[in-house]
Amino acid sequence: MFHLPAGVIYLDGNSLGPLPKAVCDHVSKMMRDEWGEQLILGWNSCGWMSLATKLGDRIGRLIGAEPGHVVLGDTLSIKVYQALAAGLDINRDRKVVLSDTGNFPTDLYMAQGLIKTLGKQHELRCVSPEEIWDNIDETVAVLMLTEVDYKTGRLHDMKSLTKKAHDCGVITIWDLAHSAGAIPVDLVAAEADFAVGCTYKYLNGGPGAPAFIYVAPKHADLVQPALSGWLGHDAPFAFERDYRPGSGVERMRVGTPPVIALKSLEAALDIWDLADMADIRAKSIELCDLFLTEVEARCPELTLASPRDWKKRGSQVSFRFSEAFAVKQALIAHGVIGDFRAPDTIRFGFTPLYLDESGVLAAVEVLENVITNRIWDQSKYKLREKVT
Amino acid sequence: MFHLPAGVIYLDGNSLGPLPKAVCDHVSKMMRDEWGEQLILGWNSCGWMSLATKLGDRIGRLIGAEPGHVVLGDTLSIKVYQALAAGLDINRDRKVVLSDTGNFPTDLYMAQGLIKTLGKQHELRCVSPEEIWDNIDETVAVLMLTEVDYKTGRLHDMKSLTKKAHDCGVITIWDLAHSAGAIPVDLVAAEADFAVGCTYKYLNGGPGAPAFIYVAPKHADLVQPALSGWLGHDAPFAFERDYRPGSGVERMRVGTPPVIALKSLEAALDIWDLADMADIRAKSIELCDLFLTEVEARCPELTLASPRDWKKRGSQVSFRFSEAFAVKQALIAHGVIGDFRAPDTIRFGFTPLYLDESGVLAAVEVLENVITNRIWDQSKYKLREKVT
Repeated sequence: MFHLPAGVIYLDGNSLGPLPKAVCDHVSKMMRDEWGEQLILGWNSCGWMSLATKLGDRIGRLIGAEPGHVVLGDTLSIKVYQALAAGLDINRDRKVVLSDTGNFPTDLYMAQGLIKTLGKQHELRCVSPEEIWDNIDETVAVLMLTEVDYKTGRLHDMKSLTKKAHDCGVITIWDLAHSAGAIPVDLVAAEADFAVGCTYKYLNGGPGAPAFIYVAPKHADLVQPALSGWLGHDAPFAFERDYRPGSGVERMRVGTPPVIALKSLEAALDIWDLADMADIRAKSIELCDLFLTEVEARCPELTLASPRDWKKRGSQVSFRFSEAFAVKQALIAHGVIGDFRAPDTIRFGFTPLYLDESGVLAAVEVLENVITNRIWDQSKYKLREKVT
Repeated sequence: MFHLPAGVIYLDGNSLGPLPKAVCDHVSKMMRDEWGEQLILGWNSCGWMSLATKLGDRIGRLIGAEPGHVVLGDTLSIKVYQALAAGLDINRDRKVVLSDTGNFPTDLYMAQGLIKTLGKQHELRCVSPEEIWDNIDETVAVLMLTEVDYKTGRLHDMKSLTKKAHDCGVITIWDLAHSAGAIPVDLVAAEADFAVGCTYKYLNGGPGAPAFIYVAPKHADLVQPALSGWLGHDAPFAFERDYRPGSGVERMRVGTPPVIALKSLEAALDIWDLADMADIRAKSIELCDLFLTEVEARCPELTLASPRDWKKRGSQVSFRFSEAFAVKQALIAHGVIGDFRAPDTIRFGFTPLYLDESGVLAAVEVLENVITNRIWDQSKYKLREKVT
């Protein structure tokens, strides 16, 4: 299903998923037959205009959303801004955005930018992940969390946190960047208010693939979009002077949809239509547990940075090591691609879609060799380049 | 250089440019050799991370920007929001955004959304294009205009309006959606403060191709981004807790760049590297004037909606007709693709890159036939579908 380079064990699909084999032909066909032949008419004749909601439903199935309540577009940063602005508008008498230090920086940065734009009456309160529960109270307007920590893989309990938030009148925003396609998510069961996520990690949509946003039905026709673009207008092609929000999640569309990127994602989602998230999760736990156990036994120099209990972990395993960057570089040179997160974390993502036990064991073998023989301790690995 | 369907005369490149022949192979190669083989490493090894500024400079040459002051990303709607938020922040003691009724609706909608978010102390003052000059005064914070009217092709005088704006202490934002690649633009000579534009029209980047933003050097290191995403951070991969803007226009980056879409645009821009905007303009005027003169002579039922004087017109010619939609549909059925803009305008875009005199004359022939023989007056053309 995927193209993977010969000799590479890829443990960074949680940063950028690999190329699904069907993508190239699907995108080329769209370019030649649709853009090339239909030109402007493609917006209707080829269904480009409805792609953002059509693909939204296919992602919706993976995250337990109601049909018609997920839409694609923009980047995750933009979708965070939209969700947060909407949440603060719903809870406009409260001024606190509660988040945690394990949240991905761009979520926090976008909140800082929005708060500045709103006039600084608001406060971004950032506590440790463990302190979130105790900090949910009646002063909080919005609880904004990433379900799975990008660095450690620690998993928040979406359902119980959302329940407590709602008991205190708090609106919830869940960032599913490291959840969608990695673990089962059930937004309806959790009664989440908003969710956002990206599609270039476990969903394999391609570098910079569009983001998605979910708005719960009870809010969908009420939220007032801060980013009120023409594609979120009730009648985009009437070219009215004033903004009138479209129905439901359609109002969260902003500008002209990125058709080529959406087409890449469309082909990538074909794989997901066949997948059962419970199976994916079961196999992912096996792979993660195997890696974790083997590395702890064979590389005592590394310190586990992820929860040992799979119930508290997403689909990645991270370790701390003072020379994490050099280790990551040495691993790549030996065919194992993991990721580095400053200052001292190496993280490894696992997905049963293109990884099995033998791959995991081979990766451990390489890691043990790199650590035991101090292969990382060479200037070519220790050189600190700009890191992605 | 372009793929155009057999038998089609394409006069809608001002809505969606046609497929440059080199795009398919360029994008496929990126997918197979970069995404497929380099995986996550492609961000550095294939230069994905610097694409947004590298392509920015190539567009910058077409719009008279200083090197290093244009960046790609997001959609035009988002870039309008960023520029307007920055402009209002610079001129924070003033509360009026001045624009005109000829501006593209999404620009006005985004301004309305921003004003709501800012707390409604601001006012969007929208006057007719002819009244703009007299309305520029010391109460205005930002003058936000689209240089070429999307419906009529009317061209604002960027230089003189910017001069008057600056004399009154007003910040200017120029939307170049129908300018970039259509007419010569000289942002430096005009002393424009901000400019934004899209790349899917005359620049032929593909449906939903990324937008661009220009920030004048004098503002570039001072503006505080409202959409403060991680790619606009000074050190995105340090994963700091607080946002610190990057240097210059880099701070106008928001989320992860759309690499596949940027690669499509990259191939499309190869054509522009060979183009001289003065030549393009001279030939475009000839084509527009020929069309305008012939249609007025042969289709008296149509009313010219564009300025007759080429000096006051972009690279399109529009006509009004009560049954404009039906005419547009009948034209398409006869191989001439123009565009409809509600309620009664048919617009035709011209570019010498893939159009010559014979094409223009053939299009006039079809239009005359459709009008004179009332071919549009058939139910299959008059059916009012959803229009793009």
